[in-house]
Amino acid sequence: MFYKRRLLAPGPTPVLEDALLASARPMIHHRTDEFNAVLKQVFEQLKTVFLTKSPVLLFTSSGTGAMEAAVANLCRTDRPALVIRGGKFGERWGEITKAYGVPTDVIDVPWGEAVDPALVEKHLKAKPQTSAVFTTLSETSTCVAHPIRDLGAITRATDTVLVVDGISGLGGQECRTDEWQVDVVIAGSQKALMIPPGLAMASVSDRAWAKVKESNLPKYYFSFDKHHKNIAKDTTPYTPAVSLIFALKAALDRMVAEGMDAIFERHQRLGRAMREGVGAMGLTLFAKRPVDVATAVNVPAGVDGGKLKKMFETDFGITVAGGQDAIKGKVVRIAHMGYMDPFDGLAALGALGMGLGRLGHRVDIGAGMGAAMKVIEEKP
Amino acid sequence: MFYKRRLLAPGPTPVLEDALLASARPMIHHRTDEFNAVLKQVFEQLKTVFLTKSPVLLFTSSGTGAMEAAVANLCRTDRPALVIRGGKFGERWGEITKAYGVPTDVIDVPWGEAVDPALVEKHLKAKPQTSAVFTTLSETSTCVAHPIRDLGAITRATDTVLVVDGISGLGGQECRTDEWQVDVVIAGSQKALMIPPGLAMASVSDRAWAKVKESNLPKYYFSFDKHHKNIAKDTTPYTPAVSLIFALKAALDRMVAEGMDAIFERHQRLGRAMREGVGAMGLTLFAKRPVDVATAVNVPAGVDGGKLKKMFETDFGITVAGGQDAIKGKVVRIAHMGYMDPFDGLAALGALGMGLGRLGHRVDIGAGMGAAMKVIEEKP
Repeated sequence: MFYKRRLLAPGPTPVLEDALLASARPMIHHRTDEFNAVLKQVFEQLKTVFLTKSPVLLFTSSGTGAMEAAVANLCRTDRPALVIRGGKFGERWGEITKAYGVPTDVIDVPWGEAVDPALVEKHLKAKPQTSAVFTTLSETSTCVAHPIRDLGAITRATDTVLVVDGISGLGGQECRTDEWQVDVVIAGSQKALMIPPGLAMASVSDRAWAKVKESNLPKYYFSFDKHHKNIAKDTTPYTPAVSLIFALKAALDRMVAEGMDAIFERHQRLGRAMREGVGAMGLTLFAKRPVDVATAVNVPAGVDGGKLKKMFETDFGITVAGGQDAIKGKVVRIAHMGYMDPFDGLAALGALGMGLGRLGHRVDIGAGMGAAMKVIEEKP
Repeated sequence: MFYKRRLLAPGPTPVLEDALLASARPMIHHRTDEFNAVLKQVFEQLKTVFLTKSPVLLFTSSGTGAMEAAVANLCRTDRPALVIRGGKFGERWGEITKAYGVPTDVIDVPWGEAVDPALVEKHLKAKPQTSAVFTTLSETSTCVAHPIRDLGAITRATDTVLVVDGISGLGGQECRTDEWQVDVVIAGSQKALMIPPGLAMASVSDRAWAKVKESNLPKYYFSFDKHHKNIAKDTTPYTPAVSLIFALKAALDRMVAEGMDAIFERHQRLGRAMREGVGAMGLTLFAKRPVDVATAVNVPAGVDGGKLKKMFETDFGITVAGGQDAIKGKVVRIAHMGYMDPFDGLAALGALGMGLGRLGHRVDIGAGMGAAMKVIEEKP
């Protein structure tokens, strides 16, 4: 059998065709009215997608660069930061704060679970001098959603800012920056934003700008201040990835036209369809509080998860992700975000069912697909 | 008259068509054998282009990010650095060292001139504890070439490393990293490497690795060590700009096939043709020691340089650069690097001659073009 190639891992995700074409148009100079006009629209559209009135800074880097920017611009060496861990990306926050010599407190959440907001509240009462809480919108390594809205309410009543790594999901996973009182949201271009990797963003609230003024850490390329000043001139401080910004513009045009409510509803439905489908095949989920943009499916006992993940690729042309660190070989992670649709989800369920069958664990594929399609067809 | 658009500014430069197409191919996952195989070749080809046996690190950022990386990885807060200024990009080195709290000594060279190596030698004798000398291969703001080879010989006899910002020119302007004893060379993707902006590189010598071990500055995204360890696994520590790396591969394939000696000879000839052409039109050059990849032409007295620069764009479809800061309105800067050929140079000379004529300063355009073509046709 011939299978097309399908990229269904949680990033990079498939690139919107209009964005691919936009990225291949001939180069123009970045200090021109023509390019400034593109950037001006992009900066406005990003606010729409982030659901914020605050400026959204645009960096030429991977998402990790913007995470580092948040630490370098918001923290001090004489004020503690609080890092919520419970997966690879929560851990990354702690690696960065430590690299910068920021005193770092940690709340360790078991992998697969979401943080209990009460623990954060208690911590901030005990340590009100904490400069920032660093957490994750969609912890891709476990497919868990932390309760960002609750954390926003807690931090807004303190002198601590809330910084959310939304790289793996912003623009798909519901994130209402201003309404949820999130001070800084980080995003990356290669996930729900439907374009190639290479751009990262950070929205910065007024409360966060106050922290920027107090920060005593070194920064240059990732300086929030410098980027902010350049937004006012419809430009960036250093030569940006022009072709990726053409692509971003194409993707944002589409997202703004669809509207964030519709985008969230669509992703919630894709997520629920995948979970119901997996459940109807008799399989279980790794995440206790799952995100909508990706699903971590527990590999049934007796099945080699590494083999199963490889089989997606070799037998069915589908790229998915396996488990990392402690859950290596124990889960497969399937994304349903950005430029992916219900039938991509069907392909993933099909490959999952057939792959398990080939490895000796038969499941009812039809039941899984039927359950998934039922969710897709439900009245809103 | 209808004129095609021509991008002849010193970066971003026109993108090789094969690279544009490569950047528009569908996305693949970055943690795959397929992508690792691309990166493995890219890492090897970069060594060929940099003329070094040392590893060449690859960052998803603009060139400035890699400059910051060099400072953050090589310097200490208790050892001075020496910055050679004499243009916007020399000045940038000093801005970065200061942002990181590195004690910074400066040699100020008048704009348009190259540094006198004897001054550097004298400085390092007086301050042998200097960790690094930061300078520029092609100082785009003035189109001056600093004597990198001489600086290499001087620094190699000391405990100081030589760091060269080769962003605006590496892959066009002659730079023989190992032979010239340069410890770190920085490059950017959007100049002579013929692809869009968004990638930056740094070659790191054994002597520089010793400095990396001693450095006490914070870094995470730009950590030399982390990038180096990942090269051994044919990968990068964070999600790279996959589509730009496809483009880079296409450009490097072409450069390696042509060979660096041929590429340097071609750029030297393009540079000389432009300078002879400009001279034969009775105009003068701003740079006393000019680079081959771009030419800064002095705007004749009585002509409004701002108008002339704009006229390139509005009347002839050609993007060039004007002067910055102290020389604003006094020069136009025309690039001849990367994916530009002799006939692009002719177009620039034609627009220069016609533009000056329209502004009341008549020149002998034919003489300029004849002189340029004579250089192109000379036997090697």
